[in-house]
Amino acid sequence: MTDLTSNMLAESEIELKRQISRLDEANTEPFKEMLSYHMGWTGEGAGREATGKRIRPLLLLLTIASCGGDWMKAVPAAAAVELIHNFSLVHDDIQDNSLKRRGRPTVWVNWGAPLAINVGDALFALSNLSMMDLANSFPSEQVISASTALQRTCLDLTRGQYLDMSFENREDVKVDDYWAMVTGKTASLLSSSCLIGAILGNADNPTQEAYRSFGHFLGLAFQIQDDILGIWGDENVTGKSTASDLIERKKSLPVLVGLSKKGKFAEIWKNEQITIANVEEIARILAQESSYAYAHDAAKQMTDLAINSLREADPQGEAGDSLMELTDKLLRRDA
Amino acid sequence: MTDLTSNMLAESEIELKRQISRLDEANTEPFKEMLSYHMGWTGEGAGREATGKRIRPLLLLLTIASCGGDWMKAVPAAAAVELIHNFSLVHDDIQDNSLKRRGRPTVWVNWGAPLAINVGDALFALSNLSMMDLANSFPSEQVISASTALQRTCLDLTRGQYLDMSFENREDVKVDDYWAMVTGKTASLLSSSCLIGAILGNADNPTQEAYRSFGHFLGLAFQIQDDILGIWGDENVTGKSTASDLIERKKSLPVLVGLSKKGKFAEIWKNEQITIANVEEIARILAQESSYAYAHDAAKQMTDLAINSLREADPQGEAGDSLMELTDKLLRRDA
Repeated sequence: MTDLTSNMLAESEIELKRQISRLDEANTEPFKEMLSYHMGWTGEGAGREATGKRIRPLLLLLTIASCGGDWMKAVPAAAAVELIHNFSLVHDDIQDNSLKRRGRPTVWVNWGAPLAINVGDALFALSNLSMMDLANSFPSEQVISASTALQRTCLDLTRGQYLDMSFENREDVKVDDYWAMVTGKTASLLSSSCLIGAILGNADNPTQEAYRSFGHFLGLAFQIQDDILGIWGDENVTGKSTASDLIERKKSLPVLVGLSKKGKFAEIWKNEQITIANVEEIARILAQESSYAYAHDAAKQMTDLAINSLREADPQGEAGDSLMELTDKLLRRDA
Repeated sequence: MTDLTSNMLAESEIELKRQISRLDEANTEPFKEMLSYHMGWTGEGAGREATGKRIRPLLLLLTIASCGGDWMKAVPAAAAVELIHNFSLVHDDIQDNSLKRRGRPTVWVNWGAPLAINVGDALFALSNLSMMDLANSFPSEQVISASTALQRTCLDLTRGQYLDMSFENREDVKVDDYWAMVTGKTASLLSSSCLIGAILGNADNPTQEAYRSFGHFLGLAFQIQDDILGIWGDENVTGKSTASDLIERKKSLPVLVGLSKKGKFAEIWKNEQITIANVEEIARILAQESSYAYAHDAAKQMTDLAINSLREADPQGEAGDSLMELTDKLLRRDA
């Protein structure tokens, strides 16, 4: 990590804490603690592993700096995108009944679903307040333009989440449905993180569009990689038990491709329970039916599109180099 | 209802539908249906009873008109405050395990808690987008000022909700805690509805403050009345079974006052189950220990403060008259 990215991450963290300190009154102290725990700052296992990678703030700040803007002024926006990400994680964990997040018990496991819903809502409200704080350093028109981009993404997140949940009970999910779902659930926030950076960096419209597009394809590439790792991945890389996505019957890209072949995998998916005992064999059958190759090609295609968009955006200076490096790192994590 | 308020309500409804139509794509149609159902537009029992009274949009629009502003331009803000109200209701109903809302099954009862959480999140995002739409008709600075007021309220809502939930497991809740809770849960949104109307109506700072204060005390007075009706009210007025708040062990103002007396009511509350069989008797005991008088006096005091603030704001014209009338109607519903 360069000094620049370290500084950006450190400033984002300070700003996140400043935003959450809005809940500092004595009577909401235990409530604030729930947010601090989720952010990875307090409780058992607090620290680097528990905070997550803060990719979205980093993308936003590297983008504004790559456009020649003053990234320090955009730190509240960086906090805002990270708060939205975490709001969606807290609600996701309730919706998916997930017991662990970043290696620790989820908020709802610790405090129950009703309070966890409220924690997510507070993170959402704090994100919006962070965006409004930009008005201290940017012209109001720019703040509104950036906020509108973020709010569109928030609606996209709920669309993606709806599709994801609806997939569970549908037998007819197609590969096209998958793209709509991951566009909302994963790509939209990465995309708007870059777009907001470009807006605040005074980039012209084609450059804004190139950054937006970069974030979008980065998100899609990233998600497909995650899908691949979830079935054929290495537990040491992912921190999740290998092939857990098959056991959880997650309709990820490789599974949807496998089902579309109407072959042996589709037969097994329909009629058998997938357990720790047969999951490796089933993952092998899925790969034989060319799902692995398909997903791998799709990831490569999205990666190329992301890198082309980034080149088109033509990021400048040290931040530009860091943005290229970060992209390489994110997209080659299984290499 | 005057022609003016009818027009305002009609325009708010059109705008609410326009905002929710952002979910009009084919693959999110069933999701949009959940929002439409909650708003009272579709499903069994749809209609006037199911939409609720839309008090917040009306307060906002009457306020801007009372300041001499063009209320038609502020309709997206009116939709925004109603969307926030409904976002909080959808999440509240999950958190409180409520089976009915406005006489119909709640969203989570119909579609399950995971999807209902997502419905609330979408209403929140749509509210934020509505606020951003104001930029088509108002200077950006005003939009940011109004949005900031609304987002502060959203954080207040989560504070109030946290306090409300924490009361359930606390034996030491004081009357002061009650004020903090209802300020967040009820008064803040009524208060910001008026404040936003005044901001968009170009009112000067003291007038903005008078309208904000009016909404705040209106909210407190309204909530205390609700508490009184929840214990000693008439089912025909409230639509809820009389005294249900005691059975549900809700720590409303009369209960907290009763507990502070450490008399017979406090004894019963601690040691007995309150059921349909003994609730009338217990409500009588609570009244004898002067809780009814205390709550009634508090409601009167808050009503007076609300009306004084409104007079200070000096609302003008037909809208001003309607605002006075609406206030009278809201604050005398048990008379």
